[in-house]
Amino acid sequence: MHPALVAVDWGSTHRRCFVIAADGSMISRTTDALGVLAAPDFEAEVARLDEMAGPAPLLLAGMIGSSQGWREVPYVTAPAGLPEIAAGCVQAGPAWIVPGLLHDDDARPDMMRGEEVQILGAMALGFIAEGAGPDLVCLPGTHSKWAETGNARIRRFRTVMTGEILAALKAHSILSDLLAAPAEETADTEAAFLAGVDHMLEAADLTAELFTVRARVLTGRLDAAAAAAQVSGLLIGADIRAGLGRLRTDVVPLIGDAALCNRFALALARAGRETSILDGETAFVAGAMALARHLELAE
Amino acid sequence: MHPALVAVDWGSTHRRCFVIAADGSMISRTTDALGVLAAPDFEAEVARLDEMAGPAPLLLAGMIGSSQGWREVPYVTAPAGLPEIAAGCVQAGPAWIVPGLLHDDDARPDMMRGEEVQILGAMALGFIAEGAGPDLVCLPGTHSKWAETGNARIRRFRTVMTGEILAALKAHSILSDLLAAPAEETADTEAAFLAGVDHMLEAADLTAELFTVRARVLTGRLDAAAAAAQVSGLLIGADIRAGLGRLRTDVVPLIGDAALCNRFALALARAGRETSILDGETAFVAGAMALARHLELAE
Repeated sequence: MHPALVAVDWGSTHRRCFVIAADGSMISRTTDALGVLAAPDFEAEVARLDEMAGPAPLLLAGMIGSSQGWREVPYVTAPAGLPEIAAGCVQAGPAWIVPGLLHDDDARPDMMRGEEVQILGAMALGFIAEGAGPDLVCLPGTHSKWAETGNARIRRFRTVMTGEILAALKAHSILSDLLAAPAEETADTEAAFLAGVDHMLEAADLTAELFTVRARVLTGRLDAAAAAAQVSGLLIGADIRAGLGRLRTDVVPLIGDAALCNRFALALARAGRETSILDGETAFVAGAMALARHLELAE
Repeated sequence: MHPALVAVDWGSTHRRCFVIAADGSMISRTTDALGVLAAPDFEAEVARLDEMAGPAPLLLAGMIGSSQGWREVPYVTAPAGLPEIAAGCVQAGPAWIVPGLLHDDDARPDMMRGEEVQILGAMALGFIAEGAGPDLVCLPGTHSKWAETGNARIRRFRTVMTGEILAALKAHSILSDLLAAPAEETADTEAAFLAGVDHMLEAADLTAELFTVRARVLTGRLDAAAAAAQVSGLLIGADIRAGLGRLRTDVVPLIGDAALCNRFALALARAGRETSILDGETAFVAGAMALARHLELAE
């Protein structure tokens, strides 16, 4: 099958390359660690991708378009949907680079690069409500994104550093040994996770509560094997508390890795929310095709 | 002058050794990196300290009495003051080891090792109110401690991982470059610090707000040189929010490093609290002398 599009989700630490058929299905997928922070030879890498694409167009999204990437592409300001983001795409050599999105707000400015493609894909697939909104969509991850949508636009959004704080605690804190334990899931780890979530939905003292996990283990109140789950519960609880904000939506669609989305779904249930889950790569591929079609690069 | 006591604050990463005269004044002070986590030859180190002390008693406090230290000394359970903590001291070879303190609470268990000596010192120096309380004292640091006191006892306390989270973010996050900047204090950095404090006193979304600092810098709303101050403000704001809890005290005594205590004093002023500051080493020396006297090791 000839590819209709090669789309790359080129982030800080990883690069995911998708070869997509004309019907939107994925022909192949490769992942490597040549993220922007690895500072690969961008010219050579883009040339290689172009060769792989042949006559098909090449679309690059994510941190590749940031100041640390290959070519800096200005953010498009929210609210923005498919037409605005497509209009912000910039041609660079053989490739098109997708702009990031900026929430240009004095109190809470924020930005994303790459997740906007997944959200466009979720819209194209009908996974996000099509009405005037406001609806909410969550992309859990290293930097979780919570976006408010309506009328096929991303109106505003918020980033929560959940995965990154967890990684930092794992690498570099008094909790390191507890977080290094293998995360086999049991009834105990689930209970510990939910206790962490519940705590953060009630109180909001993350940096205090994190230490308490250690004290619970040392006083025999919590099994060391369940400590990592409780820390995860605290961080995800803090994430959904910040992400939900004052917005009252009954259903929160989740886009991303299945295991992580399942954890967020469990946590959101504690906050009285229903969830639905869309695989992050499926969303990216659909969003890339929607952009390519809008740019008339693909049929 | 002959020493009346050699007291060692032997923590995870550092060891501070104080040679103290009979009138309680400090004859000399040495600091090194032979903390418990450096796993020095404890027997040899204690023998060396004993030789230095000569006929004077040797008192060891901090993580040296933990399971990772030289000899594990059981925690004393709060509420506890000078008599209870002295009763929990354990003789080991030529030294006396001070027990840590446990807040044995199902909802929020907590522990300290070393800070209890500083709090006893603050009590001995009249720095902490002598009434029935509850009064509050704060020891800012890697693991900030907030203790509720009354009737010369530590009743309960809470640990906040402020300094450690800051170090982890510095070593290991998207904020690393912003936090690596030299921390020269200006009117801009103070304003950024206070904005961070104010935010955390109002909202409680630390892991979200931390990312916003980066977005403020990237959108030109915050000078990169002031970003570290704002992150510090967020973390200290979260710290005092958790530490103050529901307790309404007008004055919060601070014990510790002067520069850090000054930052906490600025932040506490935003929460409507007055503060007083006691140097942490002065407090430790006074507490060690109070313990030695109670144990009849010193006059």
